[in-house]
Amino acid sequence: MTDGIPGRGQYTEEARRHRLDWLRARTGAELPSLDTTSLDARALTGNVENLAGSVEVPVGLAGPLLFTGDAARGSVVAPLATTEGALIASASRGARAITAGGGVTTKVLSQRMIRAPAFEFADIATAARFTDWLRAHRPDLDEQVRLASRYARLVDVDPYQIGRYLHVRFVFETADAAGQNMTTAATWQICRWVHDTLAGDDGPAPIWMLLDGNLSSDKKVSVASMLAGRGTRVVAECRIPADVVGSVLKSTPAAMVKGHVTLLLGAQQAGIVGAGLNAVNIIAGLFVATGQDIACVHESGVSILSMERDGDDLIATLLLPALVIGTVGGGTSLPHQRQWLTALGCAGSGGGARFAEIVAGFALALDLSTTAALVSGQFADAHQRLGRSQQADRL
Amino acid sequence: MTDGIPGRGQYTEEARRHRLDWLRARTGAELPSLDTTSLDARALTGNVENLAGSVEVPVGLAGPLLFTGDAARGSVVAPLATTEGALIASASRGARAITAGGGVTTKVLSQRMIRAPAFEFADIATAARFTDWLRAHRPDLDEQVRLASRYARLVDVDPYQIGRYLHVRFVFETADAAGQNMTTAATWQICRWVHDTLAGDDGPAPIWMLLDGNLSSDKKVSVASMLAGRGTRVVAECRIPADVVGSVLKSTPAAMVKGHVTLLLGAQQAGIVGAGLNAVNIIAGLFVATGQDIACVHESGVSILSMERDGDDLIATLLLPALVIGTVGGGTSLPHQRQWLTALGCAGSGGGARFAEIVAGFALALDLSTTAALVSGQFADAHQRLGRSQQADRL
Amino acid sequence: MTDGIPGRGQYTEEARRHRLDWLRARTGAELPSLDTTSLDARALTGNVENLAGSVEVPVGLAGPLLFTGDAARGSVVAPLATTEGALIASASRGARAITAGGGVTTKVLSQRMIRAPAFEFADIATAARFTDWLRAHRPDLDEQVRLASRYARLVDVDPYQIGRYLHVRFVFETADAAGQNMTTAATWQICRWVHDTLAGDDGPAPIWMLLDGNLSSDKKVSVASMLAGRGTRVVAECRIPADVVGSVLKSTPAAMVKGHVTLLLGAQQAGIVGAGLNAVNIIAGLFVATGQDIACVHESGVSILSMERDGDDLIATLLLPALVIGTVGGGTSLPHQRQWLTALGCAGSGGGARFAEIVAGFALALDLSTTAALVSGQFADAHQRLGRSQQADRL
Amino acid sequence: MTDGIPGRGQYTEEARRHRLDWLRARTGAELPSLDTTSLDARALTGNVENLAGSVEVPVGLAGPLLFTGDAARGSVVAPLATTEGALIASASRGARAITAGGGVTTKVLSQRMIRAPAFEFADIATAARFTDWLRAHRPDLDEQVRLASRYARLVDVDPYQIGRYLHVRFVFETADAAGQNMTTAATWQICRWVHDTLAGDDGPAPIWMLLDGNLSSDKKVSVASMLAGRGTRVVAECRIPADVVGSVLKSTPAAMVKGHVTLLLGAQQAGIVGAGLNAVNIIAGLFVATGQDIACVHESGVSILSMERDGDDLIATLLLPALVIGTVGGGTSLPHQRQWLTALGCAGSGGGARFAEIVAGFALALDLSTTAALVSGQFADAHQRLGRSQQADRL
Repeated sequence: MTDGIPGRGQYTEEARRHRLDWLRARTGAELPSLDTTSLDARALTGNVENLAGSVEVPVGLAGPLLFTGDAARGSVVAPLATTEGALIASASRGARAITAGGGVTTKVLSQRMIRAPAFEFADIATAARFTDWLRAHRPDLDEQVRLASRYARLVDVDPYQIGRYLHVRFVFETADAAGQNMTTAATWQICRWVHDTLAGDDGPAPIWMLLDGNLSSDKKVSVASMLAGRGTRVVAECRIPADVVGSVLKSTPAAMVKGHVTLLLGAQQAGIVGAGLNAVNIIAGLFVATGQDIACVHESGVSILSMERDGDDLIATLLLPALVIGTVGGGTSLPHQRQWLTALGCAGSGGGARFAEIVAGFALALDLSTTAALVSGQFADAHQRLGRSQQADRL
Repeated sequence: MTDGIPGRGQYTEEARRHRLDWLRARTGAELPSLDTTSLDARALTGNVENLAGSVEVPVGLAGPLLFTGDAARGSVVAPLATTEGALIASASRGARAITAGGGVTTKVLSQRMIRAPAFEFADIATAARFTDWLRAHRPDLDEQVRLASRYARLVDVDPYQIGRYLHVRFVFETADAAGQNMTTAATWQICRWVHDTLAGDDGPAPIWMLLDGNLSSDKKVSVASMLAGRGTRVVAECRIPADVVGSVLKSTPAAMVKGHVTLLLGAQQAGIVGAGLNAVNIIAGLFVATGQDIACVHESGVSILSMERDGDDLIATLLLPALVIGTVGGGTSLPHQRQWLTALGCAGSGGGARFAEIVAGFALALDLSTTAALVSGQFADAHQRLGRSQQADRL
Repeated sequence: MTDGIPGRGQYTEEARRHRLDWLRARTGAELPSLDTTSLDARALTGNVENLAGSVEVPVGLAGPLLFTGDAARGSVVAPLATTEGALIASASRGARAITAGGGVTTKVLSQRMIRAPAFEFADIATAARFTDWLRAHRPDLDEQVRLASRYARLVDVDPYQIGRYLHVRFVFETADAAGQNMTTAATWQICRWVHDTLAGDDGPAPIWMLLDGNLSSDKKVSVASMLAGRGTRVVAECRIPADVVGSVLKSTPAAMVKGHVTLLLGAQQAGIVGAGLNAVNIIAGLFVATGQDIACVHESGVSILSMERDGDDLIATLLLPALVIGTVGGGTSLPHQRQWLTALGCAGSGGGARFAEIVAGFALALDLSTTAALVSGQFADAHQRLGRSQQADRL
Repeated sequence: MTDGIPGRGQYTEEARRHRLDWLRARTGAELPSLDTTSLDARALTGNVENLAGSVEVPVGLAGPLLFTGDAARGSVVAPLATTEGALIASASRGARAITAGGGVTTKVLSQRMIRAPAFEFADIATAARFTDWLRAHRPDLDEQVRLASRYARLVDVDPYQIGRYLHVRFVFETADAAGQNMTTAATWQICRWVHDTLAGDDGPAPIWMLLDGNLSSDKKVSVASMLAGRGTRVVAECRIPADVVGSVLKSTPAAMVKGHVTLLLGAQQAGIVGAGLNAVNIIAGLFVATGQDIACVHESGVSILSMERDGDDLIATLLLPALVIGTVGGGTSLPHQRQWLTALGCAGSGGGARFAEIVAGFALALDLSTTAALVSGQFADAHQRLGRSQQADRL
């Protein structure tokens, strides 16, 4: 194809410049800022094809927020990559309130990644027989997983029969990686083993298969992921005295709780998945800064927020049921990304739980601040004041 | 607070360096790559608080993809910011298939942005009376909107009564901006006018209000947004002859359609919002490259994919019901972001529709390629081959 | 077919007995109680084919409950057809609490019925053109509706484009009838008119159509129906002083509200449509007693419940967004059914709003009683005490 | 209360008449048909309080339908209690098509009933500790269940932590009963044991509990029930040659499949739970005829329908994920109800699986007939023809 992007398969700075020049010629745009990049094309073989340049996203600091969690402890400052004014200011305000109340407690409840192939059978009876066969061969499945991956551990085999088709959720723990790829490899290994083992047999052999039939909800928002978990399931909790709610958040525990219940009922009426507020602002900011798969912001953005009064205090909690994150692999080894991860104390092995807890803690801080703003009308004011004034009507 | 982030409210390079040094001292991390940034701190007053540095995300080129849409026409190359190997290769494969089939037709169906305050009343009767009052005062509402914004246009006032509370979806068209902020300002103006007008009156005055009660689904995934639209609603369509499906996608129309129906039923079983595959990979890549609000990847990632056979051809369409995008405001004026937007031909006024159509076209290309890969088992192979080999088990 | 059910198309007592004898011979069952029925076979031509007998469902009285609604006023006793012990006792307890607090206020917010055909077009552009064409021909649509029905009134034409297909929600008001059939007839009339008008024209003619593509959610539970309404949308509200909550419900407003929020968050986690408790018990009981379409219990059972403290009082409201009911047509003219409807004061023209309000009021009463029971552990006790003792373990 | 319903707690014919007379006096309605009932008031102590009469619902015969299922085998005629014309005719037409194709294969996949109390803890850490404690005490839980019920068997303990609250789905198999009551009793027993065991201990004692926090989805429609099952999960399958589709259903396999995919995408757009058509018509008809809890029509009505072409044949399947049924307890022992259950061959122990399979088989038959009707426009015609003519516009 004469019009094709040049340098296909080449991971060099020369190829990058070649593509950029080609794009300039093609579009007539000068693109001066794209000339240089600090990225090393040769190091990106696993990250991007047809490299042409980069995009630089500003990173601001939110916090500090005091953590008293399982993996996240002490005062933490969060680097958020964002272009949306007021976000960091609001998260920091929430962090001040929580810290003044004694900090946020955080806890990872589970970590898992899923692939869910769909197998077609001659009839519903064979599909049901296959379900039994699969259960009986669980040790063989574990063995196949070991052949495909040193890190993936099969923790559940969860079948859903829809007519003649059997969707099987293969559920793995994947250590520090988000794990989509090792999970795919392990499941593919299982699928080939199933095929080979049942071929020519009179066992319940599938007659067709699809590597994933959506029961994994990969890159999708689903109630299934909110229920069963996908990625890291993490919870955060704080207690804030009424006087701090008043002085920092300019609200009262009663007003916050009333606002929260109103938001909950609104969420139900709208058919929202989850019942949070804007946790995804924090998730997106930390995902971009630390090299997570940014597309996973979609599925990771679901949250369930609670608020209650206890005596004079406000107790608030946040559940992130499906945070798809990793501290190795993907973009986490790129220079800036790795260093922001390091600044969070989350780089490398064992950092995943701490990272998840930091996300949950700051997301709770932001939701508190936003709820207070919505309740009192500060929300509209804040967006107008913080850097919006000069462009007032453009946004 | 002695531990606070330094330089609060200062938008200078000096303040940025001060914060970075403070973070280094605090964390013990050297963070060498964060030393420099091409961003001008003074230009970021509307984008980020507490700037400390940046993150550089690689951008690769996907395509070319031939468009025959309303706003997007001709051969387009898409800059995708990503760190996930195989994504650009897969999207480009889909683009080759579509282009060989005559291109992708695209169309924007609507553009709108929503704020939905919740008003509390003394009883359900007063809430119902307020609904009537609001309808009767529609010209006044339009007038208030004009006072608050030159661009926002109120197109619908849509009430939802839950007990004594009335949630009102104020629906706006917001031209080239994503519009959350102008919508907030306009709605806030309405709310103050409602309050002032009904105060002391014996009309149906609200006794409390919340600036948004979740009926806007702002930063959330909801069926309401999938139904009524939020942001830009855009659809893409292509027709690919069987021989192209075979030569480029290594599949057949029949297998693709069978895979699609299996995915659809799986989506239903899982309670997925929408029924697509991985459109969000394109959405995230283009959002980051062009300075969209990255948190909006969450709500924008919903899609509905269709596939059918027509004679020997495969017809596929993709609906993105809630793409929250803008070509002015937010991060779109940052240097790299603006230039990628320029390279797409979408910078500035009038670019929104073209941008939305490009997103939809490439998302359809990716979903076609991914469906083919899932059907034929290429999916697992592609992820292992493309740059994963050297880190095999890490992902 | 020799094995076929005898007397096809015959609406006589003789044919009924013939079928019953045939069934006895076929199954070997004696079926003594089925011998007689008070139903007149000749009067059932619009209600049932192949009549063989009947089923007698016991009806108990719940209440009285004091109404201060728009259409329902005064003390009402509700006949509930049920076989589930404790239901009527629990609803009556809730009714006592509400009545002691001054009664339940009720209000119908809207009434509508929907058919949503799906039209296929050559491409997405034609589908979009058809949308415009339909809007431009709204007066013609109204005219077609008048040709098909004296009662149906077209109130909205609401298009949803999915690829090349256009689903159009034709929204009607249907007076005292549930209206599925008149809506079907009117929509079918529109479809034929569309076909005839665009045939041979160069207008945007559909190439295929489906009388309903699920956007009506007919006989299904959907967020669309919860949002936009289907059938009658009705709301109920009550205020109960703390001492009545204590003496009648054996609970406190604080405990009730705490229970309610816990249920709300649980509903979100489970992906429940709506956020109620067990309103459907009342809906089913009143539907069976009064000859409603019992299958509509499925779609009608969605509810949104709220509870709040106001000073020492408990305020509770219930929204039933999609109550598919009628007071003419269907089973409402059968002898028992008509008389229970008469006892409720809802028989005939104009009774629909009163009936909907009565359903909502008693459903709120039951949810209050059930919440109190769940909070305090009475729930388990009540089910064991009320008639369950002798069969303890059977249920 | 002087206005109270008379004869509270009395299960006699005298008390029934007393109430009826009281109702007549109260409402001024004559209610002549309610005078007599064949029901024995004394036998209804577990079924209904404040008995005042009954309602007689006509029962027609649908079928015959040939079953080749696990529990349902041979030709079956289904008694459907309904007042909606065309339903039985349509189901019978579908049954003819399926029978001509060789019959319907059916299979029960699982049976379970759930209670899901919510426990509050001092903080999220204690809630997590309680989760571990509960897992470690599984044998004790089994023992408590045995104390409460001879039939219930605890098959899963499935925790969901939302902040400081732990919702626990206690999942039981309950033999021939629907099992809500025995499940409640067993769970209540567990709750009391938990309370007693942890009281005064330094273990992770709950500080508050709610007998059910909606994670059971009792009497609600949820994705959780569609996924994990509630009641009986049953699947049906048939294969119909093209000539039978043509002669009986007046359609073609291609048109049926096209219609089905259109309905699927419509279901997704509308946010329908499940992806069926009108299975609930059969469910409601068989539930009323056989004494099931009619309120369970709400949660039981969810379905997932599939249609595919295989050579010249149409293959269709239906999944009912949450059919809440029993063949003992509740209304199944009333005279008519018991006899209709007997006529189905489902009365008493072991009948549950057969009953579920019959429901699924006839629901598939109806959905086939309805799809054919929607595709070809017969739908509108059938409703007008079958008994509607004389009341044309009333419905």
